[in-house]
Amino acid sequence: MSLRCLDRCTDERFDLFRPLFACPRCGGLVDVDVDIAALPARVNKQHRGVWSFKDWTAPDLDDEDITTLGEGDGALVTLQGAGDAFVYDCGRQPTGSFKDLGMTVLVSFARAMRRRGQAIEVLLCASTGDTSAALAAYGARAGIPVAVLVPRGKVSDVQLVQPLAHGARVIAVDGDFDACMRVVQQLAARPGVYLANSKNPLRLLGQATVAFDVVEQLRRAPDFVFVPSGNLGNVAALFHGFSLLLKKGVTTQMPRLVACQVDAANPLFVSASSDFAPPLAQAAGETHATAIRIGNPVSFPRARQALLQSKGLVTSSSEAALLQAMAAADRQGLFVCPQTAVALDGLAQLRTRGVVDEGALSIVIATASGLKFAAQKAVFHAGSTVLGDLPLSASTSSLRNPIRTADANADAVWAAIS
Amino acid sequence: MSLRCLDRCTDERFDLFRPLFACPRCGGLVDVDVDIAALPARVNKQHRGVWSFKDWTAPDLDDEDITTLGEGDGALVTLQGAGDAFVYDCGRQPTGSFKDLGMTVLVSFARAMRRRGQAIEVLLCASTGDTSAALAAYGARAGIPVAVLVPRGKVSDVQLVQPLAHGARVIAVDGDFDACMRVVQQLAARPGVYLANSKNPLRLLGQATVAFDVVEQLRRAPDFVFVPSGNLGNVAALFHGFSLLLKKGVTTQMPRLVACQVDAANPLFVSASSDFAPPLAQAAGETHATAIRIGNPVSFPRARQALLQSKGLVTSSSEAALLQAMAAADRQGLFVCPQTAVALDGLAQLRTRGVVDEGALSIVIATASGLKFAAQKAVFHAGSTVLGDLPLSASTSSLRNPIRTADANADAVWAAIS
Repeated sequence: MSLRCLDRCTDERFDLFRPLFACPRCGGLVDVDVDIAALPARVNKQHRGVWSFKDWTAPDLDDEDITTLGEGDGALVTLQGAGDAFVYDCGRQPTGSFKDLGMTVLVSFARAMRRRGQAIEVLLCASTGDTSAALAAYGARAGIPVAVLVPRGKVSDVQLVQPLAHGARVIAVDGDFDACMRVVQQLAARPGVYLANSKNPLRLLGQATVAFDVVEQLRRAPDFVFVPSGNLGNVAALFHGFSLLLKKGVTTQMPRLVACQVDAANPLFVSASSDFAPPLAQAAGETHATAIRIGNPVSFPRARQALLQSKGLVTSSSEAALLQAMAAADRQGLFVCPQTAVALDGLAQLRTRGVVDEGALSIVIATASGLKFAAQKAVFHAGSTVLGDLPLSASTSSLRNPIRTADANADAVWAAIS
Repeated sequence: MSLRCLDRCTDERFDLFRPLFACPRCGGLVDVDVDIAALPARVNKQHRGVWSFKDWTAPDLDDEDITTLGEGDGALVTLQGAGDAFVYDCGRQPTGSFKDLGMTVLVSFARAMRRRGQAIEVLLCASTGDTSAALAAYGARAGIPVAVLVPRGKVSDVQLVQPLAHGARVIAVDGDFDACMRVVQQLAARPGVYLANSKNPLRLLGQATVAFDVVEQLRRAPDFVFVPSGNLGNVAALFHGFSLLLKKGVTTQMPRLVACQVDAANPLFVSASSDFAPPLAQAAGETHATAIRIGNPVSFPRARQALLQSKGLVTSSSEAALLQAMAAADRQGLFVCPQTAVALDGLAQLRTRGVVDEGALSIVIATASGLKFAAQKAVFHAGSTVLGDLPLSASTSSLRNPIRTADANADAVWAAIS
C-alpha cells in the first residue's frame, strides 16, 4: 500500500510510513492506494475486531506497533418499524464512537513511524468531541503525547472529560469547529506535529472495516447505508471498504451511500443540489447534533467521489425531526446519539419518498454512544430542549417521560407506578 | 433445565417457564439446575454474542422469544503494569453495563411465559442505575411494560435518563437502594408483577456467558477473576459459568473469584473475616461507587457458595484508592467506572500481598461504561471530588488534568499546548 494524490494530479506514490497530510504537488487530499491483487481472496477473520482485517487494512504494519483497545465487532441490531433495516452500532467502541476504528490504525502507524525514526512529538486534532476522545485514548495507550482542540462550549460535558481523563492537553478554543480545524491545519506544518483529523487518510483504513464487518454478518452488501455526516470522512471510509469488497469479488454490488446532515449544517446537502459543486463554507448554526456541526467539511472531495460512484444521496433534517427520531428509537431499546437520529430520519425520509422500498436492505450507522448525550435526553424528557422552544409534533411530545417520586413504601410506589 | 432450592431444602424441581423468585418450601433463593450431560461437548459459537451460547444457557427457549439488542462479545483489553492481566469490558454492552447480558435472557423468558399464558403485566426492579437501564431497554424491545425504583439522588444523571428514554415508569424513592429492594420484594407478590432483580436466577444464566466468552478468547480459565460486588449476583453468575465449563471438561481449573467492595458498603468483606457468616445488614455510606452502594445484598447466599467453592477472596477499598485506580486506568486509554476501579484496586492489593504472583493470569470485570460516570471524573479533573475533600496522595493528584483555553489562532493555541 502507498499514498497518492486523491485528484491524481500525479502518478507518484508516497511512503505510507512517512507523515503526509496533503499532496506535495497540488496541495489536495491524499488517499491510500490498495493493490487489489495482493489482497487475500476473502476477509480472513482469525481474531476479533478491527485487527482481524489486518490483511485488508494494514498488511505492512508490524504487529508490535498495533495499538488496540479491543475495538471493532459492532453489533447489528434490528430496527423495528423501518422495513428490512439494521442499526450498526459503533457507540459500543472503547471511547464510544466510530472514531476508535480509525484511531487504532492511525496511532499504530504513528507508533511505527516513531520507531522508524520519524520525529512525531505530539498527535494533534480538532474535534467536535468524539475524535478527541479516541485520539487521546489511543495516544495514551501508545505512550505518545496528544493535544486536542475543541470549540469552547460546543461539545458535551461527557465528551470534554474523556480526553482530560486520558491525559491529553485539551484546549477549548474560542470559536467553532471550523475555526479549530483552521488552527490545526496551520499547526500541522510545525515540526513534530502529527495531524490526526480525517484529512489523514490512515484513519479511513480502520473505519472501512465497518464495511467488512457488515458484509461478514449479513453475508451480502446492503442496498443502502445511512451515515451521519459532518466532516465527511466516514462516508468516504465506508465507500473505500465496500469498494475493496466489490473489486475483490466478495460482494456483487455497491450500496447506495446516504450522507445525512442537519438543516443547521448542511453544506453537502446544498452542494448535492448542484451536482456536488464544491460547497460554499457555511457558518454552522446551533443544533442538537453537535458532532456534525461543521460548515466547511475538510473531506468534501473524498465524499464527493464516494457519493458519485455509489449513486449516493444526501438528506437534511430539522431539529424537530431529529428529536422525534431519537426519542422513537430509544423507545425500542436503542439509545442513540443525536447524529444517529439524523441518519434514522434520513432513512424515514427516503422511505416516505419511495427511494427506499420495502424490499431494500438498509443499514444505519450509529456513530456514537447515546451516553455521551444523556444530558440532551434528560432535558427533552423533562419537557424542554437544549435549543429552547421547538415546534414539536404531538407524537414527539408524547414520547416525553418525566420521573416520578414516592416514599419508600409499597402502596406509595404502586400508586406512582399505576 | 429447571429451578430448585439453592439450599436444597427439597429435591423438588420447578418449571423454568413459571415465575418463581423464592423457594416455595423454605422461602430462600432458587437457582437453575443444569443437566451437565445434556450440554454439547463444547461451546458452539455459531453466531455472535450471548445467544451464540444458547445451548449452554437456555436450550429450551424458542427462538421467537429471544429479545436481543446485540449484547455479548466483550473485549479483553490488556491491563498495563499489572502483570499478566486483562480487563473484560462489559461497559460496551447495549445499555453500557454487564446487566444487559442477564436481562436479554430474563426478558426473553418473560416473553415466553407471556406467550404461554402467564399473567405478566409489568417487569419490576430496584436499581442503583445499571439494572434499571437494562430492564427498561429489553422490556421496550419486547413490548412489555417496565417499572423501576431508584434511590432518589443516588444514581448518576446519565443512569437516570436511560430508563426514562426507554419509556419505563421511573420512581425515585426517598430512601437508599436497600429500601427500594424491600419495596420491590413486597410488590413482587402482587399479581402480574415479575421480579427482575438478581434474586431472579434467570439473569445469572446470561451473565454466566462472560465465563464462556473469556475462556473462548483465552483458551483457558484464568487464575483470578476480580468482580466489583454489591448485590452479589454477578460473582455467583461467574461461578455458575466457570463451573459448567469445568464440569464439562472444557477447562481444567476453577478461577479464584475475588469480590471487590468499597469500605463504605462492604458487608461481604466483613462476613468473609468470620468464615462467611451471614452478614449484618449495613447502612451503606456515601461512595463514588454508587452502583455497589448496597448494605444488605440479596444474593449473599449465592455469593457465599461461589466464594467458598472457588477459594475466593474479598477485598475492600477506600475512596482515595478508588480514585487513584480510576485515574490511573484512564491514563492508559481505558475509561473505567468507579466500580471497576474498585476491582482494579482489589487486584493491586492482592499483588502487593503476594496472593497474585507474577505468573498468575488475572481478569478484571469492568462492569459498566465510564461514560455513565463522566460527571464524577469531570469533578476530579477540575480539582475536587464528589464527596468533598479526600486525603489524596501526590500521585493521585498529579493525574488531575484541567482544561485550558485559547483564542482561535495558531500561536495562542501552541502556547497553551506547550
